[in-house]
Amino acid sequence: MKVAILGIGAWGTALAKLLADRGDEIWVWGHDAALVHQVQSSGRNELFLPGIDLPKTIRYETDLARTVQASELVVLGVASRFVRDLVPALGDLRSIVVSVTKGIDYESGLTMSGILANAMPRARVAALSGPTLALEVARGIPTAIVAASQDPGTANAVQRAFHRPVFRVYTSADVLGVELGGALKNVVAIAAGVCDGLGFGDNSKAALVTRGIAEMRRLGTACGAQPETFSGLSGLGDLTVTCFSRLSRNRGFGERLGRGEPASAILASMASVAEGVPTAKSARSLARRLGVPIPIIEEVYAMVHEGKDVRRAVIDITSRESKPED
Amino acid sequence: MKVAILGIGAWGTALAKLLADRGDEIWVWGHDAALVHQVQSSGRNELFLPGIDLPKTIRYETDLARTVQASELVVLGVASRFVRDLVPALGDLRSIVVSVTKGIDYESGLTMSGILANAMPRARVAALSGPTLALEVARGIPTAIVAASQDPGTANAVQRAFHRPVFRVYTSADVLGVELGGALKNVVAIAAGVCDGLGFGDNSKAALVTRGIAEMRRLGTACGAQPETFSGLSGLGDLTVTCFSRLSRNRGFGERLGRGEPASAILASMASVAEGVPTAKSARSLARRLGVPIPIIEEVYAMVHEGKDVRRAVIDITSRESKPED
Repeated sequence: MKVAILGIGAWGTALAKLLADRGDEIWVWGHDAALVHQVQSSGRNELFLPGIDLPKTIRYETDLARTVQASELVVLGVASRFVRDLVPALGDLRSIVVSVTKGIDYESGLTMSGILANAMPRARVAALSGPTLALEVARGIPTAIVAASQDPGTANAVQRAFHRPVFRVYTSADVLGVELGGALKNVVAIAAGVCDGLGFGDNSKAALVTRGIAEMRRLGTACGAQPETFSGLSGLGDLTVTCFSRLSRNRGFGERLGRGEPASAILASMASVAEGVPTAKSARSLARRLGVPIPIIEEVYAMVHEGKDVRRAVIDITSRESKPED
Repeated sequence: MKVAILGIGAWGTALAKLLADRGDEIWVWGHDAALVHQVQSSGRNELFLPGIDLPKTIRYETDLARTVQASELVVLGVASRFVRDLVPALGDLRSIVVSVTKGIDYESGLTMSGILANAMPRARVAALSGPTLALEVARGIPTAIVAASQDPGTANAVQRAFHRPVFRVYTSADVLGVELGGALKNVVAIAAGVCDGLGFGDNSKAALVTRGIAEMRRLGTACGAQPETFSGLSGLGDLTVTCFSRLSRNRGFGERLGRGEPASAILASMASVAEGVPTAKSARSLARRLGVPIPIIEEVYAMVHEGKDVRRAVIDITSRESKPED
């Protein structure tokens, strides 16, 4: 079958490599023509997946319509801020459309699959999310992930398309919970990175992960997600890897923030976006609308968008009054 | 007040340093006279807490009765295998007795506070557990922990005794859940270390943490603990730090196992015990008695106690049939 992967960042490229082993026709679309041509000519995506040789059978494109046309499976893997503009250009697809983008739209409060479902009501929409550092997937290191769709047949089809011995795909019907877990953990990971940058160590981060997953579950449940989803791979699993791995972009962004660099300067120097930055804004807006307390997300918002002193913010997260655990 | 700390390992020493700042009389007892004298004369515990200067007000003892006599607070911090022999020697204490030892007694299936409560019915028994790498606590890095007792007054008294601006103590009435979290996470951490030793990366460990906490909750709940305790600092928090931190002994033991060293050789070379090794045996016995499936603990038991091939064991943990997430 023909598979269209939209986005030539780390994750889109890693998934292209993963899917290229069965003889399917894998097309990768990128917006940045220079990058597309460079990957095409070198057989590597050095900017996002350094050191990884890509299968020669992958096709690269800058024409969106040609990429998507007649694809049975479309993978949406661009940064969240491009999704709202990109989706209408895809037309009224009827294929399986899987979002691997982690974010929340600020205006609507929708997750990426929500935007897809609204824009293309006949598509079979799903999300694929979990603790999946792209570079480790590209290296063939064992990984597990969740394919989620309101329609069980679609979730199963996505599972069949992506499942490999070293890439185990589980299914879920709670697409909202799976996507909110993937989006919100990036915000908590910024706080974890700040702990690293301040030299606060692993005890602090473990406490942050514990409070962070409770906060994610609280907000997610208020949005209509299932609470237990946040205990799974796409919630707790993804939060853990993002808070502790050296390879995590959002943790790395927070670490530099913790060392005293201004947010704007860090963002300007990064090849790819730290999704936790826009997600902090969307999640805060969502939580205020729903009346859900989100102390960690509030402090990350204040650090990133209002220039709050990072040491003060982390102390404000950790030094709440001692009381029975909630 | 007089505080007796039993055990001169990393954790006992770090807690002595923490408690010595308020003018209380801190006594540290150790079984190993040579180590006790060395710490006393040098003002450092280089074996277990390298580079940390200890307050000069701490008293060191090798006489157990003298240490415990007239103490208002006794902290049990010896390795779990010594607890069953040590406890009767303490006599029928009426003070607060806090276990900071993480383990499960093989014969009885009891946690450490259970052994204490049986042996000294008039003592006010509690447990103190959470994501607390001793070296980070000794360095004054922000840390959070849980004081648990069936008696709320005792939990509050322990909280007051230990709480500091950089060492935040929360309370819980679920002492069994708090202790089982602390004990069982050491077993899962061995599996996480094996992943590291095999070069399996952070995606694998995140999946393991996710499945591990579910397994810990399942076994703990069958023992009578509260399920939500495993989502707190003493469950998830401690599991996370132990699986990801370079400083974790149990993870480190697993890493060497993953690189091919035999368990017996690693244990012989370690200054302190990897508690996950005996706990794997106790937990497996407990789970079999209760009929609870514990695939991760079973595989760790097989690797450590039966010499099962580590790559085979980790594959057996991770490659179970793909299915809806449970």
